[in-house]
Amino acid sequence: MYIVAIIVEAMSAALAAGRRSMDWVGVCMLGSITALGGGSVRDMLLGHYPLSWVKNPHYLLITVAAALFTIFIARFMYRLRKIFLLLDAVGLVLFTVIGCNVALEMQQPFIIVITAGLITGCVGGVLRDMLCADIPLLFRSELYATVSVITGLIYVGGLRVELPHDLVTVLAMAVGLVLRIMALRFNWSMPKFVYTRDLH
Amino acid sequence: MYIVAIIVEAMSAALAAGRRSMDWVGVCMLGSITALGGGSVRDMLLGHYPLSWVKNPHYLLITVAAALFTIFIARFMYRLRKIFLLLDAVGLVLFTVIGCNVALEMQQPFIIVITAGLITGCVGGVLRDMLCADIPLLFRSELYATVSVITGLIYVGGLRVELPHDLVTVLAMAVGLVLRIMALRFNWSMPKFVYTRDLH
Amino acid sequence: MYIVAIIVEAMSAALAAGRRSMDWVGVCMLGSITALGGGSVRDMLLGHYPLSWVKNPHYLLITVAAALFTIFIARFMYRLRKIFLLLDAVGLVLFTVIGCNVALEMQQPFIIVITAGLITGCVGGVLRDMLCADIPLLFRSELYATVSVITGLIYVGGLRVELPHDLVTVLAMAVGLVLRIMALRFNWSMPKFVYTRDLH
Repeated sequence: MYIVAIIVEAMSAALAAGRRSMDWVGVCMLGSITALGGGSVRDMLLGHYPLSWVKNPHYLLITVAAALFTIFIARFMYRLRKIFLLLDAVGLVLFTVIGCNVALEMQQPFIIVITAGLITGCVGGVLRDMLCADIPLLFRSELYATVSVITGLIYVGGLRVELPHDLVTVLAMAVGLVLRIMALRFNWSMPKFVYTRDLH
Repeated sequence: MYIVAIIVEAMSAALAAGRRSMDWVGVCMLGSITALGGGSVRDMLLGHYPLSWVKNPHYLLITVAAALFTIFIARFMYRLRKIFLLLDAVGLVLFTVIGCNVALEMQQPFIIVITAGLITGCVGGVLRDMLCADIPLLFRSELYATVSVITGLIYVGGLRVELPHDLVTVLAMAVGLVLRIMALRFNWSMPKFVYTRDLH
Repeated sequence: MYIVAIIVEAMSAALAAGRRSMDWVGVCMLGSITALGGGSVRDMLLGHYPLSWVKNPHYLLITVAAALFTIFIARFMYRLRKIFLLLDAVGLVLFTVIGCNVALEMQQPFIIVITAGLITGCVGGVLRDMLCADIPLLFRSELYATVSVITGLIYVGGLRVELPHDLVTVLAMAVGLVLRIMALRFNWSMPKFVYTRDLH
């Protein structure tokens, strides 16, 4: 499942790279950074060494391969975009649960566990957008971060009240997944904060 | 005082988010990253774990609350902008002193202590600008970094010559504060380096 | 040699700062971050503390001095640009070899060693471009990352087959250097991936 998630993230980043006409090396790098960046930032912030891809270097190869592969199948991906968006949503909730688990194993307090899930789920996309010189989509789009926080809350809350681990995992991921898909389907979004005056 | 500083930083970041029409979640995230990012980068560079907000997770909640609060009072903030700029200047010198202290406790050499102060004081704003896809203001504006370096130099220098700790703290912060306010008042700035030729 | 490499990186970043009319402080900061950022990111990702410039703070001063110096000699640099591009290429292969060595000393596996070389050689420039709110040149230009990977492969491969260390170092750097210079001379580049359809 984790492998599927990093493949999907790498492929979506490869398409973003293609939209900016990056070269093949750039595509691979952006793919790897996007797929593995969220977990890396989480681990650096928590001081959780070694990082997952340093321990399992084949993750790096997988993301590079996924990005390269995307170059060749890009023309067919439009037709697959629904599956793709679904897999991306799976990646989001899965990364969130993985991130929560890392912090739980480190005995971190509740807020940090939720934050670790959020960082793992969302920072990869933020790095992708920063490297494309864009304002991160996350900061203005469809409940992406909100889904991550809710998934984390259900997961950690469920474990707190001592529900069985498998049930909590399935429940948290299912709720997050449904929420994300409905947000995409019905174009849900958070209210925007529009401020036009300069402070200085 | 530290709490006041992170609140002010989070609020100023929230206004920057509003200028880019981010949604509420984006406002909160940008607020937290800006307020806590400087200290986090300093700690990751120095290998100083755990990070302050990981140790005290309520700092995260405070910055999120400050950012949300800003959304509701934004319309009144223009009138308060002088107080705001003053608090922002207080935040800068306070963050600088805190950053110097962290490095001093780690027995770092002089240059690293000053650099730690500078990073703590300034990197939050740099992250904010990078996430807004802007060239960091810091790199082209009113003595912000210079004030941080001078504050750090007075603080560390004063401790070296064994002045009392409280006196040195007050002195360094007062000089930094006055300098920053005068820079704002009289539009002081460093000379610019303008280079128009392409190297390649 | 390392000193030359960080000086060259700092100077090239200073010119990039000049093209964006940054002030002198911004020039110095961009210079330091570009010159020392690649190694810093590598060390933070690998958990390799203390960072080189924290251990040797005079590296910081050297990069600041190089950036300041650039402001004064910028008008003459156009004439020196060939030497400059050569030194930049030397910096790339040298940083790569240094990065590989750090990972080798940590007993990291093959893929991580190559990646550490790539990060050390290339991330400084990526940070420079991000701070200038540009899409990193690395992602779309002349074999920069490719040269780094090939240099790393020859270096690590040569050590694996137990060639003498000096020979391998010279060989890897020479091949990387020639490749980079030929890429510049003949405008070699990797194929681009151009994708125009929006996924969403």
